[in-house]
Amino acid sequence: MNNIKYYLDRVERLFDEENFMGTPEELYAPIDYTLRLGGKRIRPTLLLVANALFGGKEEDALDVALGIETFHNFTLLHDDLMDRSPLRRGRPTVYVKWDENTAILSGDTMYALAWRYMLRTPLPKLHEILNRFNETAIEVCEGQQKDMHFERKSLDEVSLDDYMDMIRQKTAVLLAGALEIGAMTAGAPQGEVDKLWKFGIHLGLAFQLQDDLLDGYGDTALFGKKTGQDIRDNKKTYLPLRALELCDTEQAIELRSLFADKTCADEERKVCRALALYETVGLRTEVEKAIAQEFALAQEYLASVLADEEKKTPLRELTETLMGRKK
Amino acid sequence: MNNIKYYLDRVERLFDEENFMGTPEELYAPIDYTLRLGGKRIRPTLLLVANALFGGKEEDALDVALGIETFHNFTLLHDDLMDRSPLRRGRPTVYVKWDENTAILSGDTMYALAWRYMLRTPLPKLHEILNRFNETAIEVCEGQQKDMHFERKSLDEVSLDDYMDMIRQKTAVLLAGALEIGAMTAGAPQGEVDKLWKFGIHLGLAFQLQDDLLDGYGDTALFGKKTGQDIRDNKKTYLPLRALELCDTEQAIELRSLFADKTCADEERKVCRALALYETVGLRTEVEKAIAQEFALAQEYLASVLADEEKKTPLRELTETLMGRKK
Repeated sequence: MNNIKYYLDRVERLFDEENFMGTPEELYAPIDYTLRLGGKRIRPTLLLVANALFGGKEEDALDVALGIETFHNFTLLHDDLMDRSPLRRGRPTVYVKWDENTAILSGDTMYALAWRYMLRTPLPKLHEILNRFNETAIEVCEGQQKDMHFERKSLDEVSLDDYMDMIRQKTAVLLAGALEIGAMTAGAPQGEVDKLWKFGIHLGLAFQLQDDLLDGYGDTALFGKKTGQDIRDNKKTYLPLRALELCDTEQAIELRSLFADKTCADEERKVCRALALYETVGLRTEVEKAIAQEFALAQEYLASVLADEEKKTPLRELTETLMGRKK
Repeated sequence: MNNIKYYLDRVERLFDEENFMGTPEELYAPIDYTLRLGGKRIRPTLLLVANALFGGKEEDALDVALGIETFHNFTLLHDDLMDRSPLRRGRPTVYVKWDENTAILSGDTMYALAWRYMLRTPLPKLHEILNRFNETAIEVCEGQQKDMHFERKSLDEVSLDDYMDMIRQKTAVLLAGALEIGAMTAGAPQGEVDKLWKFGIHLGLAFQLQDDLLDGYGDTALFGKKTGQDIRDNKKTYLPLRALELCDTEQAIELRSLFADKTCADEERKVCRALALYETVGLRTEVEKAIAQEFALAQEYLASVLADEEKKTPLRELTETLMGRKK
């Protein structure tokens, strides 16, 4: 039986051994750069684990694992351009290192390369897998659109339900999709595929809420980002949206005004005031409760999957690692 | 037996009856707008004709026809952003009417929607068709990259071979791919599929060279673009590249300097000088010869296809219409 480390190492080797270069070089160099930036590689890892969980052969899932991660990295490349993020994993993003047009076109090409990998799965379930991959991709696009749209709205105009729906599409469905597709490559029964998909959805939601929490409370040294960046950016994450529910009238007025301030003279004061307000309403405990609830739901779905309990170990390990993450 | 008009009308009806809207509206409105801008719809038409040529059922090819055109329109949407073209078919492009981020994300979503159509082909050749579609898409991206790269090069640094290779990838392979995929949906033998693909390549090359020629010699009222726009933009099209081959040393110096002038004070004079130079070296006849040669090759490949001669009529009609086009 393999543990989670085995799969993480396997995925790392898979990417190390793959050649992402091509002609013209101007098109492929940014693709190679993006795919070699590293990152947690959670999606392809989940895919391989799900495939093994139902007795699938590893070699049947490797190309699909590359495909899922290539797609994910394509979305990051275009998102970084749309969000004007200058850095990704501590290194300049493609539109900064090259230019905007390169980011657009190399991204489009990565999307096509993701399909090249996905199409290499010579399996009876190919058509079904490709359909699920594509519908997942559409949801990710819809999620990104909603995220961008929220930025133009005030705190009052975004409900917590809207937000949960957005992160479900933008983040959770691709994690769930990786697990689902991994189970499908192994030929798992539809009912078990569905349970694993739900495990992925709740894991993804927990993961994103944790990300939101770390922005307010993370250790800068570990997290790699400055505390309160979402506050500086007026981002309507789970934190201010949940805080607004916990506020009294006066506190709500202050919170709204903080998140409506677009030309802030003293950003550090703004972060301090928001964090102080969070503290007063007991936000951290509330968010931690919500995260714990998502993790618990994920674990429930995982427990309900009819498969060799021992083979679930890597997914349990991964869940537990994520539960304790500080970055 | 149906004529070309039947297929053009069928494609028009197909698009009229299709619903391209969805939620969130901000994401789908630009997609609907782009797909309803019209245009010649040559690719889906070629696909339906090729399918019928080999006795395929029309309903088996309709979704794939929608898929090819949706993909083509996605490339136009992103190309217009990358090329900063404010107008498409006389109307504002998406990045102008909405904004850059909307153009990026709606384009990405259109790409996924193209796949949704392509995946709806319940045929034994599905896997093969999807592979060919995807490899074609990758070539289109590579062609666009080369086109953008040429813009940063001087006239001397782009050879006529480089140029032909670029337009083959950017324009011809998708026309050829539409014909190829149409033939495949009908289950045509591989040898015949290949001949039709080559017909498409030469038709596409002829079409693009004609476009280049019309920029210099077209009737502005019919063509819808100002004469000499490529000259103003220093575009290394077939015209200056072929002209350079026909020039003597002195003329070559002038042509190079015209196409190196990035901050032209008197653009009309520049266009006049370039056109006068083209005239002197007898460029028009040379380009017309090259176009006629591509059309002749296309017709040869079409003649060699083993299929009911009568069923080739729409493709012959289309070729002849394109040969005589003034816009």
